[in-house]
Amino acid sequence: MPRSVRSRPAGRLLYAQSGGVTAVINATAAGVIETARAAGVPVYAARNGILGVLREELIDTGKEAKSAIAALRHTPGGAFGSCRYKLKSLEENRAEYERLIEVLRAHDIRWFLYNGGNDSADTALKISQLSKAMGYDVRCIGVPKTVDNDLAVTDCCPGFGSVAKYTAVAVREASLDVASMADTSTKVFILEVMGRHAGWIAAAAGLAGEGADAPPHVILFPERVFDEDAFLARVQATVDRVGWCTVVASEGIRDAEGRFLAEGGTRDAFGHSQLGGVAAVLAAKVKDRLKLKVHWALPDYLQRSARHLASKTDVAHAYAVGRAAVDYALAGMHAVMPVIVRTSDSPYRWKIEPAPLAKIANREKKMPNAFIGRDGFSITAAARRYLAPLIRGEDAPPYGKDGLPAYVTLKNVAVKPKLPPFGR
Amino acid sequence: MPRSVRSRPAGRLLYAQSGGVTAVINATAAGVIETARAAGVPVYAARNGILGVLREELIDTGKEAKSAIAALRHTPGGAFGSCRYKLKSLEENRAEYERLIEVLRAHDIRWFLYNGGNDSADTALKISQLSKAMGYDVRCIGVPKTVDNDLAVTDCCPGFGSVAKYTAVAVREASLDVASMADTSTKVFILEVMGRHAGWIAAAAGLAGEGADAPPHVILFPERVFDEDAFLARVQATVDRVGWCTVVASEGIRDAEGRFLAEGGTRDAFGHSQLGGVAAVLAAKVKDRLKLKVHWALPDYLQRSARHLASKTDVAHAYAVGRAAVDYALAGMHAVMPVIVRTSDSPYRWKIEPAPLAKIANREKKMPNAFIGRDGFSITAAARRYLAPLIRGEDAPPYGKDGLPAYVTLKNVAVKPKLPPFGR
Repeated sequence: MPRSVRSRPAGRLLYAQSGGVTAVINATAAGVIETARAAGVPVYAARNGILGVLREELIDTGKEAKSAIAALRHTPGGAFGSCRYKLKSLEENRAEYERLIEVLRAHDIRWFLYNGGNDSADTALKISQLSKAMGYDVRCIGVPKTVDNDLAVTDCCPGFGSVAKYTAVAVREASLDVASMADTSTKVFILEVMGRHAGWIAAAAGLAGEGADAPPHVILFPERVFDEDAFLARVQATVDRVGWCTVVASEGIRDAEGRFLAEGGTRDAFGHSQLGGVAAVLAAKVKDRLKLKVHWALPDYLQRSARHLASKTDVAHAYAVGRAAVDYALAGMHAVMPVIVRTSDSPYRWKIEPAPLAKIANREKKMPNAFIGRDGFSITAAARRYLAPLIRGEDAPPYGKDGLPAYVTLKNVAVKPKLPPFGR
Repeated sequence: MPRSVRSRPAGRLLYAQSGGVTAVINATAAGVIETARAAGVPVYAARNGILGVLREELIDTGKEAKSAIAALRHTPGGAFGSCRYKLKSLEENRAEYERLIEVLRAHDIRWFLYNGGNDSADTALKISQLSKAMGYDVRCIGVPKTVDNDLAVTDCCPGFGSVAKYTAVAVREASLDVASMADTSTKVFILEVMGRHAGWIAAAAGLAGEGADAPPHVILFPERVFDEDAFLARVQATVDRVGWCTVVASEGIRDAEGRFLAEGGTRDAFGHSQLGGVAAVLAAKVKDRLKLKVHWALPDYLQRSARHLASKTDVAHAYAVGRAAVDYALAGMHAVMPVIVRTSDSPYRWKIEPAPLAKIANREKKMPNAFIGRDGFSITAAARRYLAPLIRGEDAPPYGKDGLPAYVTLKNVAVKPKLPPFGR
């Protein structure tokens, strides 16, 4: 039942957000809803990602004003709710997949757009396959999103450019602070960044400065085994030469035995578990072994929700993949994801193309070895060429008279359920 | 030897930065240097605050381009270096004070502007007193600065408005993230903020939302004894009602015995000291006793260096106190500080007036009791009236084509010393 974009096809489109949210995932939602509306296709959203489909908790985005949908473009977080929920395999839990198809069928959902990482790509692929087998044809399109930048095929992932920009700005600003005070106060500053098993965000910190004396002076990548002696020697040498030292540590760094530094098993004085991160562990080493005054920062969710500092390039990518996903769906494409293809580094040029979900599902893109300097603590010129365009341009949200960004909260009007509750 | 602003007086003006730097202390420096230049007065800066005077490490700001001085207005950190160094009392170390006067005399410094908190006001006052006794008349002016907002007399402190804005924006953005994910992921988010013994910054977080269900749901003030049971009950009640909970904790909170929570004496698995903060301690309590998934953030220096998110009101204050300090100095005033006087809450109106350093030195302004809600976890309408104008307006720095704020680094050309080194 192929459909053309222009024919105002029957049926509805369902959009769902999955996994950790970003500063720009709602820009993708804006791209999806605005494009579908222009084509005359009604859009439902799932509350809290795939769980909203399982629970038949759907939202009618048709109840939202045009201005509210437009405001999604500059609002961080996930406007319809997201989830951390991985469906089991088809063999293990066929009932769950069948329920998904039943809910889609009950609401005449003809296109399903799942906005997430490689897990979500896998889910979209499976629903696509099963829907055919169950005789209810739903076009499943994956839509890329992740701050970790670890999706296969696509040149980069919407969400990454903004956290990359946040991180580079944070290093530049905090380093000016540390440099001012180093004579009598803090000499070592450690910034812990996200990224799981991939050092993309840590690498982006390297854009803050260039040359051995410019911050960050030390980057700790999860792609390199953490060597305590080499790390401390590099910190000490930097302090001796520059007067102070800025370190950026990826949350996922591990020692030679493969243990995460962040899982140091720390406990407070009462024996309670201490929730800390890599930065605290590194700071203790600097203090204990080098006897240098140290400070550390853990921006945590601040880094991935900082829409006020979004990259204009990233926002454009995020919107474009949303728009393309609808175009692909309405053109009758199946089990694909719109990916970002880079056609030129300088000037930076890109386009969106469809890629098969099968090539993206459950895969992880590692950072190329050639992006990490020989010293193991810096980025290369090749890394700069790749990263630099992704943080370019500013796209500040509108601010209210109160001095705060004017973010939108949707009404999220529920669609009346048509099925009995899912008995799990 | 009183001088008028218009007569191009002989002698030099010395400017020094002291204590923790802010996002806008360099805007004060711009105000000082631009105003002095317009009056034909050459400006030296001390490298690393008062230590630069003791060591006779002075910088000739006349070597800087007009554009570089103008760029100070949007550059965070301390452009000439700051220091954490408290002079001993005049009785304990008269030699240090005499050395300061000698250096001032050697370089024909007729006006000394010290930009800092209450310690610095005290230092400026003492130099003022001693210079008279030593027969070398130098006009000493204190210039206010501190993110902690704890200076007496002035309505607010330059530096505070920007960290207040940063904190409110961080709460708003991170809360959108947490709200999106709470169904299956983090339910409690804890943000640790600066402020030492005063809860001004924590209170400013309250501007992020209004009403019991809007974040932040719990603010922990150093002005209130930390009550673990009451805290956890409030968190649980919020999660039950809203689905998630955002907590803002001041670094200076203490328990009933007066112990800082941040000094929990935590150690890692190897017995090394663990440098953590309040947020980590609170997160462990939430996890251990409420069994809720928790995340926490410690922005540390990021919050006070985030010039990219400065409050326009704060930048205007910072520049104005710098300009007024020069005006007061050249008008022959002595031992005063330009302070911010609020003449109207709404519309917000303010002016700068001189206040005697003796009323500011070594005093600490506490947050009024009436600013904390009866529940002990929120701010009152009176607090909102006071805080709201201070975060209003945006004053983004220029960005380069690289997507990063274009901050200036000065040449900081050293003035040739005229005295033998200070023998300490």
